[in-house]
Amino acid sequence: MSVIARLKNARQVIRDTGLDAIVVTNPTNRRYLTGFTAEDHAADESAGVVLLTAENATLIVSPTNLPWAAAEADAESITVKPHNGDMPGTIAERLTGIDATTVAVEDLTTPTAVWFALRASLGERVEMVRASDCIDQFRAIKTADELEHLREAARLTDTAFAIAVDRLRKGVTEREAADVVRDALREVGSEGEAFETIVSSGPNAAKPHHRPGARRLAAGEPIVIDMGARVSGYNGDLTRTVSLGKADEKLGRIYGVVLEAQLAGLDAIRAGVSAARVDQATREAFAAHGLEQHVVHSAGHGLGLRVHEAPSVRKTSEETLDAGHVITMEPGLYIEGWGGVRIEDVVIVRNTGHENITTAPKGLDSLEH
Amino acid sequence: MSVIARLKNARQVIRDTGLDAIVVTNPTNRRYLTGFTAEDHAADESAGVVLLTAENATLIVSPTNLPWAAAEADAESITVKPHNGDMPGTIAERLTGIDATTVAVEDLTTPTAVWFALRASLGERVEMVRASDCIDQFRAIKTADELEHLREAARLTDTAFAIAVDRLRKGVTEREAADVVRDALREVGSEGEAFETIVSSGPNAAKPHHRPGARRLAAGEPIVIDMGARVSGYNGDLTRTVSLGKADEKLGRIYGVVLEAQLAGLDAIRAGVSAARVDQATREAFAAHGLEQHVVHSAGHGLGLRVHEAPSVRKTSEETLDAGHVITMEPGLYIEGWGGVRIEDVVIVRNTGHENITTAPKGLDSLEH
Repeated sequence: MSVIARLKNARQVIRDTGLDAIVVTNPTNRRYLTGFTAEDHAADESAGVVLLTAENATLIVSPTNLPWAAAEADAESITVKPHNGDMPGTIAERLTGIDATTVAVEDLTTPTAVWFALRASLGERVEMVRASDCIDQFRAIKTADELEHLREAARLTDTAFAIAVDRLRKGVTEREAADVVRDALREVGSEGEAFETIVSSGPNAAKPHHRPGARRLAAGEPIVIDMGARVSGYNGDLTRTVSLGKADEKLGRIYGVVLEAQLAGLDAIRAGVSAARVDQATREAFAAHGLEQHVVHSAGHGLGLRVHEAPSVRKTSEETLDAGHVITMEPGLYIEGWGGVRIEDVVIVRNTGHENITTAPKGLDSLEH
Repeated sequence: MSVIARLKNARQVIRDTGLDAIVVTNPTNRRYLTGFTAEDHAADESAGVVLLTAENATLIVSPTNLPWAAAEADAESITVKPHNGDMPGTIAERLTGIDATTVAVEDLTTPTAVWFALRASLGERVEMVRASDCIDQFRAIKTADELEHLREAARLTDTAFAIAVDRLRKGVTEREAADVVRDALREVGSEGEAFETIVSSGPNAAKPHHRPGARRLAAGEPIVIDMGARVSGYNGDLTRTVSLGKADEKLGRIYGVVLEAQLAGLDAIRAGVSAARVDQATREAFAAHGLEQHVVHSAGHGLGLRVHEAPSVRKTSEETLDAGHVITMEPGLYIEGWGGVRIEDVVIVRNTGHENITTAPKGLDSLEH
């Protein structure tokens, strides 16, 4: 789907809700709606804001980013305008120009300071409403071309994983192992890393999020590798737990339980099922082995232009899975002092089940060497 | 300065202002105050919030990040607590527990949704005030150990630049050239890249921010390289404009003007001078050549744990330079259709002037090959 078609759909959201405009501050939504690929340096350093009305779309950027934005944004459908240091003032000016009276603001990504600056500039006549995720929710349903990018990202991720695992040896540090992964991602043609590659070994594997450090990989212990390629901005996300040489007995046992939970989660996926139910399926598998106290994160998340996006597959999710959602299924167990195991695939939600687009081998044995 | 000493200073800010607590959502301030090195995946995906009172500091993180945070945060001075999906609720609970009545919230980095959730949970008795940058401003003054990290980051950046430039050849693409820079950064021992390396060539160099692409480097044209190493989280930031083979006449002329402006900016730096005055010094140099219409960004920015931080060196800055500030000086000229030139050093502000910690050669000639 082109930017033009996406914008058309987004404008329909505006018409359906009776809004005059949406102030889009989420950087992923900005890219999705305009084609401008810049990321934000930080929450208080926005590369641009999209002002979306039922009639048109304006991308407001800093003068520094203007040539980049103008080169990438779809010229047919997007007007690119610079601000001069006062982003909220520029937004307010344009909203006043179109006589807007009801304006939605993405409140999950708009800094409080920007909200109050808009509030002060817009005056009492304009109602500001908080729109937490209206764009996020329709962005969650992937179109055919988006699925192609995601399939390709999964394929490159799997290929790079195979290359990297083949090169891992006892005695290299986690940091060096992460560099091996990065090199492999580059070799297969990925646009950098989808996220900072995780390589956590032995006791470090008890931390689901971990920055690879000076610890050296040893035989038999769990080595968790979490990595992703990127293709046209779309992300891969793959976790495998491997062992150099024969896995020790405990690793074999824990691995089996996590694999069982992952398969139970995958089995529960289909359009119409609540995301919370899928998360629950993995928890029940862990509970059957009395290991539920070692579950510290949710079972999965949506994947697309952003690594974590809608729908969220967690205990407290209120979302229902829909055909065209792309989610990860990545249960794990984390045991303080020993280590951890996580196994993650990416799947497309279908009406009758799911399509698993990850092909990296999943047996612990098959990865020993 | 240790985390303990930093916290002591931060608590003094609280006492001085009569606040009961500050809710620190800025991820760089979080790292600065606690030692927890995680970054935020996105504005709406915080890795943790620090609740700072005159008496203690609590780092509130997701259960997923708990082991990582507990391993890195200074155990003497920081209490690490998990939330269970409801970060604002957990913050509000702790604030209520200490009977807080006046609470500051970092409004530049706190999402609007979090502000209103806190507002709803805290009740009318608690006054919430917006604190845009009280931590940022004292973090801008670097201590001796921070200066050591920044010197080392500058040294590694310069070394990697020399290695990379030596390897550049006509015909390689911008993307390949950026990979050459990344390899060099890794070779010298940098913690990854301070930011996504920019290599922009020929007409692409007219864009100050640009993602390196498939364009091949050609002889004589401007090639802008903007790169940085990272050491213990502290960033380098170096821009040089080079030419493969003899620079064409226009490049030589434009380069001379930018160098003149950069030297004028450097010359204006000393404690007590307004940041805006330093920016103005570079603009006056450009205006003397009638080229001010090609200036599209400010002259510099603070540098530390974050690539862009206080003080901002721009026309509209209200900040005054202080001894111990570390700033970049990076004026540039950008000419649509032709290209651009930018030259950037990192300096420490001193009472009597500045100390330039960048040593990469600055003559266009010295970089030809």
